[in-house]
Amino acid sequence: MNTKIAIGIDVGGTNTVFGFVDKEGNCIYESSIPTHSEQNADQLFERLFLNINNDFKKFSNDYKLAGIGIGAPNANYYKGTVELPPNLNWGMVNVIDLVKKYSSLPAAITNDANAAAIGEMIFGAAKGMKDFIVITLGTGLGSGIVVNGELVYGADGFAGEIGHTIVDMNGRECGCGRRGCLETYASASGIRRTVFELIGTTNIPSGLREISFGQLSAKDIADAATRGDQLALKAFDYTAKVLGLKLADAVAHLSPEAIILFGGLANAGDLIFLPTKQYMEEFMLNIFKNKVKLIPSALPGAHAAVLGASALIWNELNKLN
Amino acid sequence: MNTKIAIGIDVGGTNTVFGFVDKEGNCIYESSIPTHSEQNADQLFERLFLNINNDFKKFSNDYKLAGIGIGAPNANYYKGTVELPPNLNWGMVNVIDLVKKYSSLPAAITNDANAAAIGEMIFGAAKGMKDFIVITLGTGLGSGIVVNGELVYGADGFAGEIGHTIVDMNGRECGCGRRGCLETYASASGIRRTVFELIGTTNIPSGLREISFGQLSAKDIADAATRGDQLALKAFDYTAKVLGLKLADAVAHLSPEAIILFGGLANAGDLIFLPTKQYMEEFMLNIFKNKVKLIPSALPGAHAAVLGASALIWNELNKLN
Repeated sequence: MNTKIAIGIDVGGTNTVFGFVDKEGNCIYESSIPTHSEQNADQLFERLFLNINNDFKKFSNDYKLAGIGIGAPNANYYKGTVELPPNLNWGMVNVIDLVKKYSSLPAAITNDANAAAIGEMIFGAAKGMKDFIVITLGTGLGSGIVVNGELVYGADGFAGEIGHTIVDMNGRECGCGRRGCLETYASASGIRRTVFELIGTTNIPSGLREISFGQLSAKDIADAATRGDQLALKAFDYTAKVLGLKLADAVAHLSPEAIILFGGLANAGDLIFLPTKQYMEEFMLNIFKNKVKLIPSALPGAHAAVLGASALIWNELNKLN
Repeated sequence: MNTKIAIGIDVGGTNTVFGFVDKEGNCIYESSIPTHSEQNADQLFERLFLNINNDFKKFSNDYKLAGIGIGAPNANYYKGTVELPPNLNWGMVNVIDLVKKYSSLPAAITNDANAAAIGEMIFGAAKGMKDFIVITLGTGLGSGIVVNGELVYGADGFAGEIGHTIVDMNGRECGCGRRGCLETYASASGIRRTVFELIGTTNIPSGLREISFGQLSAKDIADAATRGDQLALKAFDYTAKVLGLKLADAVAHLSPEAIILFGGLANAGDLIFLPTKQYMEEFMLNIFKNKVKLIPSALPGAHAAVLGASALIWNELNKLN
């Protein structure tokens, strides 16, 4: 047999995950190495390809490598670069040129949210859809937009920054230097900020009052909400209200068939989906009401990042055929 | 000679303009008839084609008709329909089916802002651009979005409603039934509302205090601002701030090469362009700063609507070749 498989690579601040994925989205193998964010990109990719080449030996009788898809922060699909990623000591680097030192396979790179969007289109919840948006609710809020079956990169390759649309020009300080960005409200760190604002502004009793900001996780808030903690429930409601408002704005731009929520905070399930859907409908222009699905990712959680990254290159290879 | 020309039709609440436009965007002839908004669509198109057929006789030796492009409120490109237009007594009507009663030429329909966007792409300021946004600043605020060289219609054909993104969920009442939509601030009627709010909330002296709301036009405000009227200047500044904020949001979604301002309020020139550009840059995420052009329409004002409508069908015919 010579089944073709793609290498999917997801570069994170702590670990870099890689795996082998066939055309149907089966993840044959997955592993990871520490990213060592203090190292430069070349040092990571040298270590990475040592591991990839070694691990592939077990599969080389049955499989043939077809290409490499990479998800990385601040990646530019057009240029093949990663530009000043906030959590990596990379500066400006052309990753696609770098990869050529280690492999002659076709390679493509984009950011993790765009990779997730292509992953959903090829293997997940957006199969058969031509117009949809993926929102990744992690530490920040990322987004990948698909229009007419193509990922929207925009004029410069950086489109899809819905996390940095502005909810309130006088609102919360954002890591980007501005104020009131959506991701300061609707993300794992955003809901933690909301809990602490509510602790300050209300007298609602809550077990969360005994936890420091440094110790509090979005999972803690979800667990408290599930137990009926009123402050945690109010934090989810507020998060959903802000997210619903800005998703209604995104719908007004793009009229997608569906919006797919992906990542840590999306795992809170009904706690986030039900109120977000309600507020999104409330804030949506009449002509769009009850048309746009709000659905969870259908990429299996354990392999989602690698599936997304591999989908990027499968999508490129499909275009060639 | 048998030069091909397209019929461009722009249906407005008061008048319906039509004209003959060649492939290079030369408007050979233009005329108009009253729309009679109390009539149904069939009555309008019957009158319209009587005029078109009659007027075309003068040109039939030199020109051959190639197709019909129509711009109309609440038009759906996919379905060929116009759906419950606010200013016309049409209800739900399939205009493309209707046109077949009067002509066997290929025909297409979209709303006026989308027609303007295609007009700019084929004949105007967006020639050669693949990613841009057209904002029409008339009584309301319309928008047409182009991604990868294609107009964005979305899943249902109604994408591009940036005028109904929400600036402030507790803000001004909008004709759509919600509150705080962009077009209640950034449009000819929006700036009139701003003047009256400023008359109420400030003591700034102004000649505009002598004019009733019913009598005040956006042109009056521009003229006052040009004369140095401080209240009028403040109204332009506020309009620009709100518009700049939401254009920065649109850039975060789409990363366009340019945003083109079109229509009545855009004719105020530097009064609106300079502060809008300044606020847009201020509210924009770092990676987009100083990349996105803010430019005026390059469709000649007198024929812009007919050029946009004809561009729609020229674009369709170009796809076939």
